Amino acid sequence: MRIGMLIFPMLEELDLVGPWEMVSMWSQQPGGPEVRLLVAQSQDPVVCAKGLSLNPHVTFETCPELDVLVVPGGQGTRTEVDNPVLVDFIRRQAPGCQAILSVCTGAFLLHRAGLLSGKRATTHWASLDRLRTLGDVEVVEERWVRDGRIWTAAGVSAGIDLALAYIADAAGEDVAGRVQLAAEYFPNHRIHGEASRHPQAPRYVRSNAP
Amino acid sequence: MRIGMLIFPMLEELDLVGPWEMVSMWSQQPGGPEVRLLVAQSQDPVVCAKGLSLNPHVTFETCPELDVLVVPGGQGTRTEVDNPVLVDFIRRQAPGCQAILSVCTGAFLLHRAGLLSGKRATTHWASLDRLRTLGDVEVVEERWVRDGRIWTAAGVSAGIDLALAYIADAAGEDVAGRVQLAAEYFPNHRIHGEASRHPQAPRYVRSNAP
Repeated sequence: MRIGMLIFPMLEELDLVGPWEMVSMWSQQPGGPEVRLLVAQSQDPVVCAKGLSLNPHVTFETCPELDVLVVPGGQGTRTEVDNPVLVDFIRRQAPGCQAILSVCTGAFLLHRAGLLSGKRATTHWASLDRLRTLGDVEVVEERWVRDGRIWTAAGVSAGIDLALAYIADAAGEDVAGRVQLAAEYFPNHRIHGEASRHPQAPRYVRSNAP
Repeated sequence: MRIGMLIFPMLEELDLVGPWEMVSMWSQQPGGPEVRLLVAQSQDPVVCAKGLSLNPHVTFETCPELDVLVVPGGQGTRTEVDNPVLVDFIRRQAPGCQAILSVCTGAFLLHRAGLLSGKRATTHWASLDRLRTLGDVEVVEERWVRDGRIWTAAGVSAGIDLALAYIADAAGEDVAGRVQLAAEYFPNHRIHGEASRHPQAPRYVRSNAP
């Protein structure tokens, strides 16, 4: 199995590295993915939204056919939706993929590639209304949502939960459990302050608010 | 405020990027840290344990005096404990820091720099016994633990909780809450499979096991 993760200028760091870590822990289990690649338009370093600088493994041209494509979000998606080379890469890889995952505003890149039309999907809470405005997406306020082979996560850290759920589906609960233990992903459930009562906070947060 | 994060070959990706994301979201709040830097021994790209390649912002020699130092873990710590240049960098920066944070097996680097002696601390569950063997650390099986200005987290993803707790302490619950909301860090609490019943799973996990 080959998993590719799209990288582009001004992507949000944890959108990418959360799923990267989970998928990497999976690769150390028997039957896990053999190939994990960061894919960019060129071989140049990619500077993320918060200043982390990453070196791609392959380019759109040298990337092999993928089984799973992961698309992070971040401020950069606002310009990348108008980058025909990047959108075409998603369009070209999608038909051969058994699953396509987005995190945060990565959903807008999937939409531009024609993959969200008529689908249930989600994004970062502050962009839910913008996703609704597109008109042809059924927007849900969940931590993550699956519609067929399209999996979309809420903001930033939600990609971790999405990746674990995808691994559980693809490889079983036992494998997902071993990945969760290896990454010691047992968050302490603490809600700091009162920001989570924000009127735009998504339904799944408001329904669990203290 | 200047926050530096140590990077070295074979560090674990999420150990670093979890706190990086939280601290970066903090930097966008009024009064948040002005400077966030990845610090390495040289300017060469640093290849992490799972293959991510990062470009440092500064080297040990060009790094300014830091207010907060964050030390991730990963397989690379097993060799870096014997790297006198890296250990000396920690030793040199520590006296001026108001807080020193480690994630996962980053605790062993703090120990080698003389910072954990007589302190309560934690690390990745699979390395707790190894931390006990050092003899002069009071090892606790919590998600994270603070002892004075030394904050240590459990494995990999625990650095996110640690960073939020540190931000809450340094800047208040409201700021930590806004960071949590910006990163949409409201995990879904799902425990996959039965791996969390592993006999070596730390106390804080076993006490919450299903």
